[in-house]
Amino acid sequence: MATHPITLDYSLAMQSGLSSPAGLSDAEIEAQLEPTSAAVRALLARADSGELGFFALPTQRDMLTEIQAVASRLPAGFTDVLVLGIGGSSLGTRAVLEALRPPAIAGRALLGQGPAVHLPDNSDPWIFAHLLKTLEPSNTVVLVISKSGGTVETAAQMLIAQEWLQKALGKDGARARIVAITDPTSGTLRELATAEGWATLPIPSNVGGRFCALTAVGLLPALLCGLDAQAMLSGAAAMAERCRATRATDNPAAMIALLSWLHDRERGHSIHVMMPYADRLKSFAAWYVQLWAESLGKRVDRAGHTVECGPTPLPAVGATDQHAQVQLFMEGPRNKLVTFIGLAHHELDLTVPKNEGANAYLSGASLAQLLEAERLGTTEALAADGRPSLTLVVQKLDASAVGGLLFLYEAATAFSGELYGINAFDQPGVELGKKLAFGLLGRAGYEASGEQIRAAQRARPGRYRS
Amino acid sequence: MATHPITLDYSLAMQSGLSSPAGLSDAEIEAQLEPTSAAVRALLARADSGELGFFALPTQRDMLTEIQAVASRLPAGFTDVLVLGIGGSSLGTRAVLEALRPPAIAGRALLGQGPAVHLPDNSDPWIFAHLLKTLEPSNTVVLVISKSGGTVETAAQMLIAQEWLQKALGKDGARARIVAITDPTSGTLRELATAEGWATLPIPSNVGGRFCALTAVGLLPALLCGLDAQAMLSGAAAMAERCRATRATDNPAAMIALLSWLHDRERGHSIHVMMPYADRLKSFAAWYVQLWAESLGKRVDRAGHTVECGPTPLPAVGATDQHAQVQLFMEGPRNKLVTFIGLAHHELDLTVPKNEGANAYLSGASLAQLLEAERLGTTEALAADGRPSLTLVVQKLDASAVGGLLFLYEAATAFSGELYGINAFDQPGVELGKKLAFGLLGRAGYEASGEQIRAAQRARPGRYRS
Repeated sequence: MATHPITLDYSLAMQSGLSSPAGLSDAEIEAQLEPTSAAVRALLARADSGELGFFALPTQRDMLTEIQAVASRLPAGFTDVLVLGIGGSSLGTRAVLEALRPPAIAGRALLGQGPAVHLPDNSDPWIFAHLLKTLEPSNTVVLVISKSGGTVETAAQMLIAQEWLQKALGKDGARARIVAITDPTSGTLRELATAEGWATLPIPSNVGGRFCALTAVGLLPALLCGLDAQAMLSGAAAMAERCRATRATDNPAAMIALLSWLHDRERGHSIHVMMPYADRLKSFAAWYVQLWAESLGKRVDRAGHTVECGPTPLPAVGATDQHAQVQLFMEGPRNKLVTFIGLAHHELDLTVPKNEGANAYLSGASLAQLLEAERLGTTEALAADGRPSLTLVVQKLDASAVGGLLFLYEAATAFSGELYGINAFDQPGVELGKKLAFGLLGRAGYEASGEQIRAAQRARPGRYRS
Repeated sequence: MATHPITLDYSLAMQSGLSSPAGLSDAEIEAQLEPTSAAVRALLARADSGELGFFALPTQRDMLTEIQAVASRLPAGFTDVLVLGIGGSSLGTRAVLEALRPPAIAGRALLGQGPAVHLPDNSDPWIFAHLLKTLEPSNTVVLVISKSGGTVETAAQMLIAQEWLQKALGKDGARARIVAITDPTSGTLRELATAEGWATLPIPSNVGGRFCALTAVGLLPALLCGLDAQAMLSGAAAMAERCRATRATDNPAAMIALLSWLHDRERGHSIHVMMPYADRLKSFAAWYVQLWAESLGKRVDRAGHTVECGPTPLPAVGATDQHAQVQLFMEGPRNKLVTFIGLAHHELDLTVPKNEGANAYLSGASLAQLLEAERLGTTEALAADGRPSLTLVVQKLDASAVGGLLFLYEAATAFSGELYGINAFDQPGVELGKKLAFGLLGRAGYEASGEQIRAAQRARPGRYRS
């Protein structure tokens, strides 16, 4: 069998591989194969009926044509792309660009081709004010991204950025430089884009904000940077094919879902660490954190019963976190399942020069060899103490592999939602905080929320301060 | 009472403030005041005897003079500082620089004064190879940082960087541009620095690598960037004074320790989220993660009994994580204690222009107001569901406040170690992984480790792959 571009090894999540009851037994896996198949079939049925859109994205070739058309109509010669979006509207894009572009080196011109892409996501004025002071409106293109269209942070940034463009370039100049990416028909951003005459691209109505990295949200920035968006989709399509296997052991996303869910439920391994040994995948880990946390952290199951479930995803990076979090992973509570990601091939490498003395053992070693030895050393050290892990090996971190990784975890998340019995596609828990914030901002219709928060603050004892 | 530059509000960690038994009762706190006082006294005794050095760092004024002297002897006109160090040798520096310098904007010259500081920490060749291709040896200063002196990632980077300097500038030119920061007398890096004739600065023997942000490790880069290192120390000294109070309720570090420990032990709130509402404090949260995880995640207590304890620190940032992790915090398992950090004053701000339609409510609001409303909204939404939090308010995020924050959490960590009954100042759990990696690298003396890892791999069933 040819090696897949991305392979999953779960031997150290199993009793026989781990030589410890902290691993799962073959019988436990066997017992869940049929429920997992059912979960896969249920998901595929919803995907194939068009209810869930993310599964079909990799094979929607016309999508890329539409994105290319919008890209080609942007004013020529821009040097900067300012992406206004938060959560699922920035994390996937960041993951794609960080994995595939040379790193931005502070104070220097960009390496490689294409514009600088800035993702100020937060409503913190610090980064945004510095950005607007530094960028030139005439060299900048602004992408405004929100699935729902009502995201307050993005709306605020968008209004400020529009004024910034208009002051420099007039209304027409500003209009030509803004692209809105949002629901095809509904929402505030769609209305505004229509009213203002901005170019738009759709996030299909059946694709949630967390699952939209392989729509225009991730693909337009990739295209603008000269990355191979088609290869991203092809890699995702190949992975989607693997993720259609109804026997879990043939389906890497189903296996990740099954192993994660069983380790959580049966072993109390409720903290799911994502630890790539590659700086280029730090933002992938951050993207995974959102996907896993927001999809699986739910108060009620699909029958409406209170369950308050959800593993806690934890980002890490090797080898760096061997000097930060690994001490806790090795010796702390046995409540973690670590997923390591290794790269079989590094495009760049450096060799330690020949030297004598205490560091002589490093003579001739390459940094990639060192990183690989550290990954295996940490994996085996955990295993030697009966602490479970999964390992993904990526043959080469190119556009195809990035598409594959994104799809793999989208599918794993969706399957996990079935196993947990919850709705992985909503986020009702963030509504109350939003309402309270609207109340404090004096938004019409939220007066009661404003009063609620002020009453709570008044009622609170003041003595707990230091 | 004048407001402190940094204040702790723990009313929402208490039963009476939270209106929920998930909060702690006054009686529970009362019952632990004497043990907490004992912990503070024990720590102060070890600090005052010179056994633990970090407590005295803020008042060691001669330290800064020595650092300034080394800084002044560096070749003039460098534009880049390459910091080779990992874990405690980079996280604190990153936190300081991110909080106090303008952000680096991709593809642009630095804003503000001073050199670019690059912290490639990892042994991943990706960043390091790009850095060495981009930087000019004649414009670069290299800081090599390792408390123990034997850190393999740093040693490898250092040997590569030394060769890079020597090829361009010769042995003397290279020598003049390297500063080693390490133990004053022992370790490989100290030996090498002596042999090579590098300038050196000490990490005092009684200061651990995680606790060294307020030594030359953090202060030399700060000075090289023109930051007010003296103010950092003054802010830390003021905080150190507050952290000497033996009554816990007067001592913010002791209260953080007591509340965190009791929430973990008595309520199962074992995941400790650090969530600043400020992009500038993202790296502070990463620094906290190392400090909390590596100090408190321990297999044995001080009597040698197996305890496998340690809360799991989790980094977040507001408002961004309202679109990523907050869904889980709001609806998932009740196993988290969130620490919010708010800034009372933002140096930069932007105002949303007047507009009509769906976003009219944002007209005239500033991004800082929006961020503050979101912080309060999220805090109160958690509280309304009986989910506990602490809040730190920083009046102004200047050098003094950064020194204060660093010291506050160093002290809180040390006090927590006493309450957990473990040694907060070692990291024995990372040794096995290191040995196994050395074995794979063929280091003399580690042949058995190499054989151990290969035997484990051979013995493993090969069928768990997908």
